[in-house]
Amino acid sequence: MSPEFSLINKYFNSHKTKVFKGIGDDAALIKKNNDYLWAISTDMLNEKIHFFPGTNPFNLGWKALAVNISDIYAMGGTPKFALLAIALPEIKSLWLKKFSDGLFSCAKKYNVDLIGGDTSKGPLSISICILGEVLKKNVLLRSNAKKNDDIWVTGELGLAALGLANLQKKIKLPQALTKKSIKALEKPMLNDSIIISMSKLSHSAIDISDGFLADLGHILDASKVGADILLKDLPINPWIKNNKLFDMGLTGGDDYQLLFTAPKKNRSKICLVNKKSSIQLTRVGEINDKRSLRIIDDNGKLYKTNTNGFDHFET
Amino acid sequence: MSPEFSLINKYFNSHKTKVFKGIGDDAALIKKNNDYLWAISTDMLNEKIHFFPGTNPFNLGWKALAVNISDIYAMGGTPKFALLAIALPEIKSLWLKKFSDGLFSCAKKYNVDLIGGDTSKGPLSISICILGEVLKKNVLLRSNAKKNDDIWVTGELGLAALGLANLQKKIKLPQALTKKSIKALEKPMLNDSIIISMSKLSHSAIDISDGFLADLGHILDASKVGADILLKDLPINPWIKNNKLFDMGLTGGDDYQLLFTAPKKNRSKICLVNKKSSIQLTRVGEINDKRSLRIIDDNGKLYKTNTNGFDHFET
Repeated sequence: MSPEFSLINKYFNSHKTKVFKGIGDDAALIKKNNDYLWAISTDMLNEKIHFFPGTNPFNLGWKALAVNISDIYAMGGTPKFALLAIALPEIKSLWLKKFSDGLFSCAKKYNVDLIGGDTSKGPLSISICILGEVLKKNVLLRSNAKKNDDIWVTGELGLAALGLANLQKKIKLPQALTKKSIKALEKPMLNDSIIISMSKLSHSAIDISDGFLADLGHILDASKVGADILLKDLPINPWIKNNKLFDMGLTGGDDYQLLFTAPKKNRSKICLVNKKSSIQLTRVGEINDKRSLRIIDDNGKLYKTNTNGFDHFET
Repeated sequence: MSPEFSLINKYFNSHKTKVFKGIGDDAALIKKNNDYLWAISTDMLNEKIHFFPGTNPFNLGWKALAVNISDIYAMGGTPKFALLAIALPEIKSLWLKKFSDGLFSCAKKYNVDLIGGDTSKGPLSISICILGEVLKKNVLLRSNAKKNDDIWVTGELGLAALGLANLQKKIKLPQALTKKSIKALEKPMLNDSIIISMSKLSHSAIDISDGFLADLGHILDASKVGADILLKDLPINPWIKNNKLFDMGLTGGDDYQLLFTAPKKNRSKICLVNKKSSIQLTRVGEINDKRSLRIIDDNGKLYKTNTNGFDHFET
């Protein structure tokens, strides 16, 4: 969410709710039974804002659901049910067929049932509401990062930003990377296989949708802690690193990788999760109590971004 | 939903779900515990489609939530939690303040907690996802209307359509009716106080959002039954009746009145509910096994509408 749009929170966050946790985490939590919570979240995609006109409808259907599922994973949960509200400027059968094929492919892949929806005429806009279940004792709140926690990140950072820059013709990439990065942007794959293990081993988590800095910032803010990160430790895409476009890896959105903070004592167990899974887990730094987020470059100096994703970012 | 848009269902209804009831009723149902179900639904409002540019933002916030709450009532349920996804073309503080005031007034009135949301830039579009609880044994499915059931309708029909026609300058109304009808359109009041009683006494229900004919049609279709309705028995707004604009009462949308079908043996108990409540309940006809919906005019002839709200409507 852009800083301008985060102003909106002022109007919607001020009302206290009876839920376990309200607006502000990746998902809201309500009691399911003595052991489990329902995690519930909604994410909307709008044409020209979140995707270009003419985006492959299969990928769009996939992504609209995937970004919602990602919020459930970020709570340490298992996605279960989704509802779709979609506005369409006109009915095009072929487009709808491809869109629903993409949506249901994603639903099948991550075991989600579409249980309801609403369709309307209007500028292309897709809202999905998702429900998942979370074992209460393993729930991963943004506000629960602890001093000395290791910070772990899945996969590669900046790939979706690379895809976006490529589509915007801001950069020219090798053919294979063009394909890979646009796929990362348009059809994000999620880190489902490690969620159950990582929810047992971690204190907190968030999905990297706004960019690494912004999203780590959300955790630091909610947990009232800080972090020092060595730039060289970040799993930023190699092409980005080679071309020294570090901002793309630090502030580029839409990666839908996961960031966990976990106690040091679980380090060897997390390395084992990493070994057993095809999903790469990289340890990128450590939580401290300084209330600031610092990126240290290869010369030991503070790295300054041009795009500031976090209010408390030290430059 | 217009017939064109109902085509979309073909793509989204074809996937079987594990829920108690899937897409197609006012809300989807999933198990809460042995006695209760969660009813979950989503409804979206788009500028220029569901409301005019410049609509009072307080009323818009109210209505966006109210139309969702109405879906829970139509299942015989109690609304509990809501999530809001809103796209805004720009940030206007005063507009947002009024919109959120309207939304939270409605939430307070009907005991709903806003627990999550998403905000984005885009043409004004408001999607709400609502969760309510329903006592399993009293759930009101569209598919459960029985032959010989009485058909009951709350309140007055056509008032919102009158408000719309007035705003469109298609008709000129007395001043008091102008105000009343626009209020019915923009800030619908819901029939909360009778839901618990009526859910015990009825077989099926629907909220009248698409118009009386279309929505009764949905029940007949789902229950594989028919109905004969005497035009004179319908609680159509008196001004509409006097001006013989019956179509407005039969096919006008956005009334958010409730339609119940209930066994004859409960007639006296329902009359008692009617007596005790400020909400008017009118018995308008009876379910039969003819698989058709017929409106009979004062001369005993079939009434023909110009606007056909129901596929099986006999003309």
